[in-house]
Amino acid sequence: MRIVVLAGGIGGARFLRGLKRAVPDADITVIGNTGDDIHLFGLKVCPDLDTVMYTLGGGIDEERGWGRTDESFRLKEELAAYGVGPEWFGLGDRDFATHIVRTQMLAAGYPLSAVTEALCDRWQPGVRMIPMTDDRVETHVAVTLPDGDPAAGPSTGSGAGAGETPPGSAAGSGVRKVIHFQEYWVRLRASVPAEAVVPVGAEQAKPAPGVLEAIAAADVILFPPSNPVVSIGTILAVPGIREAIAEAGVPVVGLSPIVGDAPVRGMADKVLAAVGVESTAWAVAEHYGSGLLDGWLVDTVDATNVERIEEAGIRCRAVPLMMTDVDATARMAREALALAEEVRTV
Amino acid sequence: MRIVVLAGGIGGARFLRGLKRAVPDADITVIGNTGDDIHLFGLKVCPDLDTVMYTLGGGIDEERGWGRTDESFRLKEELAAYGVGPEWFGLGDRDFATHIVRTQMLAAGYPLSAVTEALCDRWQPGVRMIPMTDDRVETHVAVTLPDGDPAAGPSTGSGAGAGETPPGSAAGSGVRKVIHFQEYWVRLRASVPAEAVVPVGAEQAKPAPGVLEAIAAADVILFPPSNPVVSIGTILAVPGIREAIAEAGVPVVGLSPIVGDAPVRGMADKVLAAVGVESTAWAVAEHYGSGLLDGWLVDTVDATNVERIEEAGIRCRAVPLMMTDVDATARMAREALALAEEVRTV
Repeated sequence: MRIVVLAGGIGGARFLRGLKRAVPDADITVIGNTGDDIHLFGLKVCPDLDTVMYTLGGGIDEERGWGRTDESFRLKEELAAYGVGPEWFGLGDRDFATHIVRTQMLAAGYPLSAVTEALCDRWQPGVRMIPMTDDRVETHVAVTLPDGDPAAGPSTGSGAGAGETPPGSAAGSGVRKVIHFQEYWVRLRASVPAEAVVPVGAEQAKPAPGVLEAIAAADVILFPPSNPVVSIGTILAVPGIREAIAEAGVPVVGLSPIVGDAPVRGMADKVLAAVGVESTAWAVAEHYGSGLLDGWLVDTVDATNVERIEEAGIRCRAVPLMMTDVDATARMAREALALAEEVRTV
Repeated sequence: MRIVVLAGGIGGARFLRGLKRAVPDADITVIGNTGDDIHLFGLKVCPDLDTVMYTLGGGIDEERGWGRTDESFRLKEELAAYGVGPEWFGLGDRDFATHIVRTQMLAAGYPLSAVTEALCDRWQPGVRMIPMTDDRVETHVAVTLPDGDPAAGPSTGSGAGAGETPPGSAAGSGVRKVIHFQEYWVRLRASVPAEAVVPVGAEQAKPAPGVLEAIAAADVILFPPSNPVVSIGTILAVPGIREAIAEAGVPVVGLSPIVGDAPVRGMADKVLAAVGVESTAWAVAEHYGSGLLDGWLVDTVDATNVERIEEAGIRCRAVPLMMTDVDATARMAREALALAEEVRTV
């Protein structure tokens, strides 16, 4: 069975671990989100790709869910001693090696997909992982930073609402800024509303070699409970990928990242609001739409959502969706595959 | 008193520490060797500059003489796990930060001299340190690698002596190669003769901003007991620097790195042989020459050298030259400055 999985970071990685447990012999291709990539200290950092690679390769810090196990942060402390930041992004001593190797290979002319393959040579994640694109895509978020935020800079009154408030006079007017997704997510912990979420560069990006081929050859396509906007949504924003999935003619089944009207982990509600989608299991299903999605799993606490989702033309079931451990996650994966078979035989 | 010091790595750094102890109020400018710079893992590494900076800034590993105190090597182990080397060059987790900051600043367009100044902002070495040049100079060494050396590659018989020996037939013919100085020094520990030492790029290099000005403004110019070929020699190979020193009209005094016909530390004899200079205190003095050098300190064990050196037109004294601790080194520095005054009043 050939399975294609669109994956973000922690949620996607953990789901994949369950999927491998559920169907150890399946041929799994992961299309990884690169919209959260960031250049730090002159190095190319791909947080989602690394989270999947480390998680499936046994190198992840289980507690944090990102970065390397048994990690230390001495290099970062030294960078801070030089006054070089950002300090809010956690790059560990062991993790740095991945970014150094990646950056060196990219500088030598290898595309990110080839670099990812080379890195996976070490980690043997047991899946084929392809970045969604070899082109540069970076998700940016429009926010209004509160006055006094270090990134807001000296208040000039030129932010949102500047028309109404003379420069320097109004307190709390804030400064409108477009910031990197990581700054929004990691530094600000999504503490201010995301006014817009833009995968910069996506429109000009091409799917990486192998992406469309894997989709065309898939027996099943799965959307793990990853962030629908900044993970799955970014992958779908690369021209050709959404179309290829819709036209693949195989079951496309997703798992809701929203349980009981709140994200299971992360802060998906913040970025869902930016695209006008309610933070509910049904709203996310309808956001993907029946043109893309054939089946949708919601958590048992959201069983009341099932009818509405099925009315929207998406086959739906309510099952436990908490990835508390690998076995529970494997059960979720089996449910997703069972729903796919149900959809296929309709 | 304005003192200009031409410095290599460990020897130069330790001498400078003694010099600062001897004349705490002196205005010291260090012209640093960059011929041993190397690109590793996509990062620009300047071992000599860093050794001086860390030593004078209190960050050096005292026992090794290079790298950071309280160092760990986790990042390097991870690079090795990716199969990315070289493994023979010791870059520690804390040390990496210096190379990352440097590389990032260079990529942003700053010249090495500005980068060095920025790094020294943190370390406050108490001297002004200028790299000899902002241009790329890398010392290379011609060697005959023994068969079986990992860098020799599969034996093709195309090395030195290939004409006489049919391919693959003769044992021990070796493979002639030009390798980076660091590979010769660190990986091979100078275990094979240096057939030639070439500061690649030196001929086209220009002295960094401030170098010639510091020399012209100096009251005294000192050559610490650094390597006469790959440290001081490389600095002098940058067009304009040797001439500026010779024409400065101030005492130029050196300290012999050779004591009792052997280098005090390092393997200076190996590279002296490559330039046809005997490994003796007098031969090194004559190698610099009376056109450049006004005074020369030899160790007391080399007192018999004094007459010969003075006959060559270089004022010479025999004093203890072992840098066993900072106080002993400070005494050496005072002797060098005393000799400079003696020369000046001639």
